[in-house]
Amino acid sequence: MPDNRRFLLQRRPDGEPVREDFELVTQPAPDLAEGQFLIRNHYASLDPAMRGWMDAGGNYMPPVPLGDAMRASTIGVVEESRAEGFEKGQWVMGLNALEDYSLGIAGGFTQPIDPSLVPSVTNYLSIFGAVGMTAYFGFLEVCEPKEGDTVLVSGAAGAVGSLVGQLAKIHGCRAVGIAGGPEKCARLTQKYGFDAAIDYRGKDEAALQTAIAEACPAGVDVIFENVGGPILDAGLMNLNLYARVGLCGLISEYNTDAVGARNLWNLIVTRSSIRGLLVMDFVERFPEGAVKMGEWAAAGKLAIDEHVDEGLEGAYDSFMRLFAGTNDGKMILKIA
Amino acid sequence: MPDNRRFLLQRRPDGEPVREDFELVTQPAPDLAEGQFLIRNHYASLDPAMRGWMDAGGNYMPPVPLGDAMRASTIGVVEESRAEGFEKGQWVMGLNALEDYSLGIAGGFTQPIDPSLVPSVTNYLSIFGAVGMTAYFGFLEVCEPKEGDTVLVSGAAGAVGSLVGQLAKIHGCRAVGIAGGPEKCARLTQKYGFDAAIDYRGKDEAALQTAIAEACPAGVDVIFENVGGPILDAGLMNLNLYARVGLCGLISEYNTDAVGARNLWNLIVTRSSIRGLLVMDFVERFPEGAVKMGEWAAAGKLAIDEHVDEGLEGAYDSFMRLFAGTNDGKMILKIA
Repeated sequence: MPDNRRFLLQRRPDGEPVREDFELVTQPAPDLAEGQFLIRNHYASLDPAMRGWMDAGGNYMPPVPLGDAMRASTIGVVEESRAEGFEKGQWVMGLNALEDYSLGIAGGFTQPIDPSLVPSVTNYLSIFGAVGMTAYFGFLEVCEPKEGDTVLVSGAAGAVGSLVGQLAKIHGCRAVGIAGGPEKCARLTQKYGFDAAIDYRGKDEAALQTAIAEACPAGVDVIFENVGGPILDAGLMNLNLYARVGLCGLISEYNTDAVGARNLWNLIVTRSSIRGLLVMDFVERFPEGAVKMGEWAAAGKLAIDEHVDEGLEGAYDSFMRLFAGTNDGKMILKIA
Repeated sequence: MPDNRRFLLQRRPDGEPVREDFELVTQPAPDLAEGQFLIRNHYASLDPAMRGWMDAGGNYMPPVPLGDAMRASTIGVVEESRAEGFEKGQWVMGLNALEDYSLGIAGGFTQPIDPSLVPSVTNYLSIFGAVGMTAYFGFLEVCEPKEGDTVLVSGAAGAVGSLVGQLAKIHGCRAVGIAGGPEKCARLTQKYGFDAAIDYRGKDEAALQTAIAEACPAGVDVIFENVGGPILDAGLMNLNLYARVGLCGLISEYNTDAVGARNLWNLIVTRSSIRGLLVMDFVERFPEGAVKMGEWAAAGKLAIDEHVDEGLEGAYDSFMRLFAGTNDGKMILKIA
């Protein structure tokens, strides 16, 4: 069996993950039992949700065991197979790990994919993967946008946020994005078609609240929330009656003792709701979502932005980009 | 015109209201124009929502103007009338103020009531008033309880909370209440039929979270939230999948810089929702709610608890009971 470089979780992070919480080791690739196949991973998706999987408590998934390779969605090629339906050389996608080789199991989560259907095979980790489906189902199903609604997106330059803004425009909404720094804000309006962009940097909660009010003169009907903290609080203060907040992520709160949301009282005043959303609830409808996203991408209505870093040895630095916000588009790690 | 003692808002409270924010003055009762009538107020409802009406910002209602009598729901008797449909001697209920006499306007919010239909005319301020309707519609419509659900109620010994617990039992749910102190907790289980009571006093958030887990071995399907802060946070950590949080009030946060909700991330993990509720959305369905509440009360399934303090001159102390939690049942001020 070939050498298998594996990016292991060796210690549960206390707040912000540090380099020493992980270790890149080389182990032999696993032997195959009947019904199993070996995947040569080519690309891995790096997502904020992975931070939650590092904690002991677990959430919607069990925690990654210490000493095990860090769980991640990957795409790769079947290197060897003892499983029916998985041929050597076939491209597959699944929930595997940050490692050169992963073990696939027939009947498991790993599914064949067809690179000839998409501009780049990596798109299976962006618009046709969890990120794209999160934007599609999270926005359209959970936030229930109506034509003419004002949609406020936090983390708007991120992988999910940038898609949500574009989906909002496709559905006849006013899209307003919040992001950090002038470059990202320029990208929101120039590349993704947001009607307005708000730079949260250098703004306290009151200034942010005012900036949102100015960018959303008719108030906010939908918030697609990726960030939390004062950004969510400032958004809550601009809600219209019966507004919907789709809670996709709270990236500002994952590594720190959260400040928390102090403006929930405005949910009462406006009779609005916050609903947590998780893409796995919509797995059975992924084909529907992928077809629509593909149509819009083909029509030039959806920009596909991917930020591909190279090399398993840089996994920690690439992952931490998500929290520093130094990635431009869906964060992907090229493994081979 | 008779003398009219009026409890005026003279200054907007900074955090917790103090005695000096108000003043009891005597003014002549207003003269009547055509279409108006004079109400001799007998009872006023004291509610946490009044705290919000004292602030400059306003919320779902305009703020009470400084120098005006503090807005409150009252019941009283028509003393004199120049309005068709309102006869001298008739009992009425409406959104008036903490004062001996209020001016009623035909076509306004004031409605005739019939004391012969209820055990005590004050019941129009409790189970047949906003409090009862908040419990009825807030719980049944916003929280969507199903038979067998576990329902967690904070502020469970309060006017709304105690009714929600009883409604939960009527609908085949397990009812668990959170209240402050052993007397209140005993009242929850012995008088209102809660299956379990949790005393939040002396418990930090972690201990509260554990106590909820123990009292709710099958997890929490519905939270009816009146309190907020660490009590809400502890509840959020016990949510089952697709749970519903009806946000009725956040009394712990009204007078202070709120700590805020730091566990919203568990809404994502459990795909649960928080929805703000306000009884005025259901005004047109009040007759439906009142009939049902009346049936359950007549069948002995709903205890009606009212805490009646006497005298306009004690309005401040009686109002502050709501925040100290020293009222036993719906807080009502007897004016005459």
